[in-house]
Amino acid sequence: MFRRAVTALCYTAARALLALRPHVHRHLPSVRTAPLLGFNLDSRWSVTPHDYSLPNPSWSPEMMRLYDHYNSLCEQEGGGKSKAPWVRMPSYNRLLKYAKGGQCLSKMVQAKARLFTRNMKEEGASFEYVVFLNKQEKMCTCIFQAGHLLEGPPGYVHGGAIATIIDTVAGALTTYLGGLVMTANLTINYRSPIPLGSVVLVHSLLEKMEERKILIFCQVTSSDGSKLHTEATGLFLSISLGHLIGG
Amino acid sequence: MFRRAVTALCYTAARALLALRPHVHRHLPSVRTAPLLGFNLDSRWSVTPHDYSLPNPSWSPEMMRLYDHYNSLCEQEGGGKSKAPWVRMPSYNRLLKYAKGGQCLSKMVQAKARLFTRNMKEEGASFEYVVFLNKQEKMCTCIFQAGHLLEGPPGYVHGGAIATIIDTVAGALTTYLGGLVMTANLTINYRSPIPLGSVVLVHSLLEKMEERKILIFCQVTSSDGSKLHTEATGLFLSISLGHLIGG
Repeated sequence: MFRRAVTALCYTAARALLALRPHVHRHLPSVRTAPLLGFNLDSRWSVTPHDYSLPNPSWSPEMMRLYDHYNSLCEQEGGGKSKAPWVRMPSYNRLLKYAKGGQCLSKMVQAKARLFTRNMKEEGASFEYVVFLNKQEKMCTCIFQAGHLLEGPPGYVHGGAIATIIDTVAGALTTYLGGLVMTANLTINYRSPIPLGSVVLVHSLLEKMEERKILIFCQVTSSDGSKLHTEATGLFLSISLGHLIGG
Repeated sequence: MFRRAVTALCYTAARALLALRPHVHRHLPSVRTAPLLGFNLDSRWSVTPHDYSLPNPSWSPEMMRLYDHYNSLCEQEGGGKSKAPWVRMPSYNRLLKYAKGGQCLSKMVQAKARLFTRNMKEEGASFEYVVFLNKQEKMCTCIFQAGHLLEGPPGYVHGGAIATIIDTVAGALTTYLGGLVMTANLTINYRSPIPLGSVVLVHSLLEKMEERKILIFCQVTSSDGSKLHTEATGLFLSISLGHLIGG
């Protein structure tokens, strides 16, 4: 019983860790329009959270074109392509505030806290992104539109914002593969700057899994793949919930 | 004449690059209360920009204590400690929008663009920080208070937000040393997570300068220095303005 409770907590925290819930995908008949339908959340959620990975009016035609492309490769409603390897990963600005938990869990919850990449109300101003997971290939592709509030060098995306989306996408894949994880190392090579407002692809691929260590390789390219903007590796460690809350 | 114009543009862009204006410091009699006084900005600025590195009501007592400590080591108004090695570096959310420039410069200016680390109106919500530069030792120390909108793992700062403040502080030192620079590599080891809302110190030190390459070593520690949160190196490249605008 205790083990089950801890496992449930781990799942909740793991999902909150990157605001992604990969294990939900595995049970869903569709990821296109209603990622939460068909999954009984009543006991765990007080309201249905907003899924930030769905299109909004700020998405450019290029962002929409890429979204439609990857979405067409996903499992469809009604099970039309039930064996399709791709799934879209929903994304929230915070999960734990919706979760019911014991004392340990509530210690971690700060009411006003929001996920760094989803902390803006204004659509299109900062991080607009959607992550697609390929379960067979153990890889993720993220379509990322960099808003005007992410500036570093004049007219270009801040190196820290690029590190952030890399950590997020690599972490998304790692969470799918290893459950609750923490970033141990990021090594990022910036090859060419990313113009503010542009749409790029962030590819993330499993390099190696060894005990608690998960090594991920990342590339950020232009939307047509012709230009390499950034290359990176991320080392992640599987951890227990107790590790996170200092238990 | 052309060379002088390009040099002026380089200075403007270099300052905008990290929203820091180190060369202004060298000429200022004081960094405590009026970093822009005594410097003729009329020809270059339409309004006096807001300096985000000065205290605001969201700063915690610990942040204020550290600020007062480092500020007391700085050059004082009236030249009381004119040979003090430390200076506070002012920080803006954007400089180029205030700058007058030709076609090349205006190509880079997007009216709504804001520096990633200074893009929030709400004080205390995201990055609150102030960078002090030690010119003699070629090092910077940043006091960083991590707001509730920087969350990654529940209750802790996002790895991308940590990368961002490291890039900013290391880049600040590099801009002082090398003018207009771009980040080429960041290698970050996350040793222990940073609790959301806490105040930490980001120390940045010159490791090596070789032609266009500048290597910086960084450490993020607890405010009393007893706990190491993060270690990193940053490699920066001095570039020309033409490089940035594709000229």
